[in-house]
Amino acid sequence: MTRPPRRARAVDVAARAGVSVATVSFVVNGKAEGRVSPATRLRVLDAIAALGYVTDASARALATGRRRQVALLAHDMTNPFTAQVAAGAAAGIAEATEGTGHLLLLLASDDAEPDTEPVGAATVDGVLINYPGTLPAGRPDLPVVHLDDPAAGGHQVSMDVTVGARELAAHLADLGHRHVVFLDSNRPWSTFAERRTAFTGEFTRRVPGAVVTGDRSGIDLAGAVGRAAAALEGWLGSGATAVVTATDVQALGVLSALATAGVPVPGRLSVAAFDDIPFAAVSAPPLTTVALPARELGHRGAVLLSRVIDGTAVDPAPLVLPAHLVVRGSTGPP
Amino acid sequence: MTRPPRRARAVDVAARAGVSVATVSFVVNGKAEGRVSPATRLRVLDAIAALGYVTDASARALATGRRRQVALLAHDMTNPFTAQVAAGAAAGIAEATEGTGHLLLLLASDDAEPDTEPVGAATVDGVLINYPGTLPAGRPDLPVVHLDDPAAGGHQVSMDVTVGARELAAHLADLGHRHVVFLDSNRPWSTFAERRTAFTGEFTRRVPGAVVTGDRSGIDLAGAVGRAAAALEGWLGSGATAVVTATDVQALGVLSALATAGVPVPGRLSVAAFDDIPFAAVSAPPLTTVALPARELGHRGAVLLSRVIDGTAVDPAPLVLPAHLVVRGSTGPP
Repeated sequence: MTRPPRRARAVDVAARAGVSVATVSFVVNGKAEGRVSPATRLRVLDAIAALGYVTDASARALATGRRRQVALLAHDMTNPFTAQVAAGAAAGIAEATEGTGHLLLLLASDDAEPDTEPVGAATVDGVLINYPGTLPAGRPDLPVVHLDDPAAGGHQVSMDVTVGARELAAHLADLGHRHVVFLDSNRPWSTFAERRTAFTGEFTRRVPGAVVTGDRSGIDLAGAVGRAAAALEGWLGSGATAVVTATDVQALGVLSALATAGVPVPGRLSVAAFDDIPFAAVSAPPLTTVALPARELGHRGAVLLSRVIDGTAVDPAPLVLPAHLVVRGSTGPP
Repeated sequence: MTRPPRRARAVDVAARAGVSVATVSFVVNGKAEGRVSPATRLRVLDAIAALGYVTDASARALATGRRRQVALLAHDMTNPFTAQVAAGAAAGIAEATEGTGHLLLLLASDDAEPDTEPVGAATVDGVLINYPGTLPAGRPDLPVVHLDDPAAGGHQVSMDVTVGARELAAHLADLGHRHVVFLDSNRPWSTFAERRTAFTGEFTRRVPGAVVTGDRSGIDLAGAVGRAAAALEGWLGSGATAVVTATDVQALGVLSALATAGVPVPGRLSVAAFDDIPFAAVSAPPLTTVALPARELGHRGAVLLSRVIDGTAVDPAPLVLPAHLVVRGSTGPP
């Protein structure tokens, strides 16, 4: 994005249009009616467009067709992974648009699809989507970058979830586990399918007679605690010696349910997960998990989106960030 | 805020201005130059203003003087308390402005003051400030609501931190504690001063010969883990039997450092805090903490802000939400 050498100010607009600063203010603040003649108003709007006057973002948007905002569509901003993505995206947008001041608009919902109407209503220049399967309605031309959605087409940034899942499967196989419960997310998103499929494929390839029992829960703490408490007797009775969850938040819920039930971790059940949110390092025991670079995902996605908006992005090619297993105290021999 | 009975569409603008929908599109997308005559362009802008055309937010902002956005200035959106405030504020803004579609712009920084330039540049109708002491520069007229900042003037929503702190002091006194370390935040915000002052005042009032040793750390996990690990020997050597932290995140860091050092909780040290973030309920042991209604704080703040923007808010009077102690497993007799 190009940047004028100096930002135009209201006084510059006034000088070019041959009016007072107060007149400029009436026009940009929508108070021209009855105060400013139509001809003068048009002169001011033209001066705004010519100078790229940016103090009022709305005037600039009309003048340039740019809104200087991008949106992040995400699920549940109280999820620590999402929060890291958002923090990275905010940093990335600030870095990539230095001088043009794009802002990040966070559209998140914790119990329904995010409201994409603001996106459709053209208040943004582009959208980062970290809500798999969700596309802004009615704006097929809008620049979009998908985050962590390997099934999405177009511009995207994802993570090498498969490599991380295989490392986790190898770790549990090496420890001697034969029967694992995989507690999936109850949301049908491609990133979760990839986690489950890659783990299960590698675990069954490595372990003769391997059993992977499927289960699922919400990816919120309460949902995972509830499911683990209800299913625990069944898990233990089935002979499972480890529980792998699709997300760290679920694993923290499982650890809580196991502590309440007096089940030793990892003595009786090993627990492992995906994400490596900050809280995973301080749980009791600290959580073995596949580290997925959430902050970098948001950061890289925002930089890519700014290039798509600029028209300087090359043809879509998935950018895949590395993932790796972090072994901590929640996994041990069966 | 009043709402037109039906939203004007581009076709309505075109009909009123006597132009094609394509011409309306050129004008609102800043592509009128060379395509639309100045006189026609002005007719379109007038029709937009007359009809309150809202499909393009920028055009509406010029027409009405309203930007249909509010900002939340906050510290570190990866802090779970902040995330809850933001989620509540998003819900509150959506509820309070039903039909007018205000959006929440989250301006957060995890290592510096938030960039308030976008606020100063008039891209928003109002600001929720959950970053004590920070005021948007250069916009003394901008509607503002302060959150959790008892020292702020003007419109504000806060929480009865003092009542909660006194309940916590009474709880530790009743258990028989005499010497407590208070691990404060290293940020000089009024909410933290209130937590420390209220706790210390009540504890020393209840316990003859009470000792409250002051310490401080960052309110991020790593900062708290580091400080607790470095200070632990001194805390234990001083005879302290409990650690109270200004925030749950600090307490989770302290619990982690104590687990690493093999110090039993609550057997050797009790740990308690303020906030009641979701993770406080699933730590090991679960955390005794003063529950502060973060989501409601954001929700009420957003509703109040929309009234201030509307001009329907009454004179500033602090709205104080209740706080109360939640006793869990991290506190016990010394």
